[in-house]
Amino acid sequence: MNLTRRDFAKLSTLALASRFAPSLYAGTPAVGKTGYCVIGLGRIAGHFMPGVRNTANSQITGLVSGHRDKAERIAADYGVPSSSIYNYENFDEIAHNPAIDAVYVALPNSMHAEYTIRAAKTGKHVLCEKPMSTSVADAEAMIAACKAARVKLMIGYRCHYEPTNLKAIRLIREGALGQVQAIESTFGFNISPGEWRLNKKLAGGGPLFDVGIYSLNACRYLTGEEPEHIAANASVIDHDGRFNEVEENVSWTMKFPSGVVASCNTTYGANMEGFYRVNGSKGWLEVDSAFVYEGLRLRADCATGKLDELNPARDPSHFQAEADHFSHCLQNGLEPQSPGEEGLRDMRYIAQIYGSAGIAI
Amino acid sequence: MNLTRRDFAKLSTLALASRFAPSLYAGTPAVGKTGYCVIGLGRIAGHFMPGVRNTANSQITGLVSGHRDKAERIAADYGVPSSSIYNYENFDEIAHNPAIDAVYVALPNSMHAEYTIRAAKTGKHVLCEKPMSTSVADAEAMIAACKAARVKLMIGYRCHYEPTNLKAIRLIREGALGQVQAIESTFGFNISPGEWRLNKKLAGGGPLFDVGIYSLNACRYLTGEEPEHIAANASVIDHDGRFNEVEENVSWTMKFPSGVVASCNTTYGANMEGFYRVNGSKGWLEVDSAFVYEGLRLRADCATGKLDELNPARDPSHFQAEADHFSHCLQNGLEPQSPGEEGLRDMRYIAQIYGSAGIAI
Repeated sequence: MNLTRRDFAKLSTLALASRFAPSLYAGTPAVGKTGYCVIGLGRIAGHFMPGVRNTANSQITGLVSGHRDKAERIAADYGVPSSSIYNYENFDEIAHNPAIDAVYVALPNSMHAEYTIRAAKTGKHVLCEKPMSTSVADAEAMIAACKAARVKLMIGYRCHYEPTNLKAIRLIREGALGQVQAIESTFGFNISPGEWRLNKKLAGGGPLFDVGIYSLNACRYLTGEEPEHIAANASVIDHDGRFNEVEENVSWTMKFPSGVVASCNTTYGANMEGFYRVNGSKGWLEVDSAFVYEGLRLRADCATGKLDELNPARDPSHFQAEADHFSHCLQNGLEPQSPGEEGLRDMRYIAQIYGSAGIAI
Repeated sequence: MNLTRRDFAKLSTLALASRFAPSLYAGTPAVGKTGYCVIGLGRIAGHFMPGVRNTANSQITGLVSGHRDKAERIAADYGVPSSSIYNYENFDEIAHNPAIDAVYVALPNSMHAEYTIRAAKTGKHVLCEKPMSTSVADAEAMIAACKAARVKLMIGYRCHYEPTNLKAIRLIREGALGQVQAIESTFGFNISPGEWRLNKKLAGGGPLFDVGIYSLNACRYLTGEEPEHIAANASVIDHDGRFNEVEENVSWTMKFPSGVVASCNTTYGANMEGFYRVNGSKGWLEVDSAFVYEGLRLRADCATGKLDELNPARDPSHFQAEADHFSHCLQNGLEPQSPGEEGLRDMRYIAQIYGSAGIAI
């Protein structure tokens, strides 16, 4: 799509103009594109940045890293000028960088609160990875800071913007399963020694914070309800040095106000692809895998008939959808579908699950 | 296999002779065959009796029913003489019927205790359907009565004798999954109004007693351990008259001494085929369906490789295996693999699950 400056001037008067705005200058934000400064250049940032590149309304305009070399390489790839590379000391200078509209917090869990609050103070909007924080108090402080700074806060719940999960929700809401009775969900993996996820100070806890949160959140978006009774068990089986600080397994049951019950497992000791099954009076629906970056498959046998749909979308499509949504909200003055309050709720339920399992966090 | 009386005399000195003994006279017990008197001619008896017919070591030799006509029809089919048809009043006269070695208790749950104890007093062995009883006290009384009468008591846990379930156990014990971490299991169905299962006095409780017990028992035989922490939620969603006395849904989590955790759901409000998935450090194993009478399928991706095995056995093979086992035990002075004590354990855990869910039983 080639636009003259004159064409663009016309387009820019339309609400959706920003979705079509071309990048005018490498390294500076295209008019109408939301510029993201990525904080933390680890694994998940490596999914987010290509996702952003695939959107029409977002771009990477800043980087924060303790590794300048790595940041320079990525900056070159994404057309970010060297002057927009920050470290953890001078990070707050993003306040003066007009190319940065929002930050993407991709740090270990325990650092989400500090960098969300610092970013809010610079006047930038915040897209923060899940889990939102490592404590309810931190989550509340993050929301307060963003409110005080009048910036928007969104938590990176990819599945809220992912078509297979959205279809599952839609089928349930449309009554294809009849009355939902019970849900099962699991997600886990066999963790390697030495990961920061095994450090309680950085991670807050074990698999529940990291992957179990997907099952917890899924039970909430599948039912559209908040759990009112939670009970849990947790354990460490492998005394091989990995689980000196965090739990290895968590199993929990939830009851929702309607009476729907849910049972979930999460682990750092076994590979669980991540799935849920929803059992209703008129049939069932299963998404397996449900939470990984690609290869999502929805199967159902319900009032709508039999379904077996493998989603062909490939990574980084989830991140693209997530960035697209937040940018759209920022550009149109809308609240994101997964605001800080959504992350806070999960933090409260996580605290209840740990409490029931006898684990102090 | 044709045997002369002389051949048979020789064979009968061998431990396994009874497995090959031909039926000599219709209507009376074949030498070496265990004769069963079936108490209650409902749905499950209709699976058990054909199963017995398919064994080489068991036969139907008596019937107890409140419906003489129905009993006469079945008696004719199985070669049971009219004199071996009893009702619930004269049932105790089986004491004087030498063709009856054991009874099969196929009555509603709350009647298991009475008829097991009465049968024991007649000197007959007892194969009692699951759930063993509707209370821990009843289960204890049943065991005591059988001990006092020096008769054997087995609970009808079909899956303990079923090849696909046995293979799952063997794979786990052999280490094919590495260290087991977590198990998920469910079983349920959408119950029709008017079933005796909805009458608390007859059933003891809802789906946990009836079908949830399969998941509970499976978690125990898959781990080879007894749960040490149990927590649960229960609910009624459908206020349509079905659930005035018993719960509709139960969701529970268990922790075993090794640290293995398990999460289970059961329902009377949705059709759940019955499955379990076992997650280990070296892979996973799933049986789905696991608990129904046929069509059991084991899939795994573990140290042994990838498996996908559909068991071709058809109903009533589970009942055949169960009767074959108990008869073999009776004929050889062995303890059954699922004795009364096994049923009692489940009754204790069921009581704990209900207790945790706030349901009085």
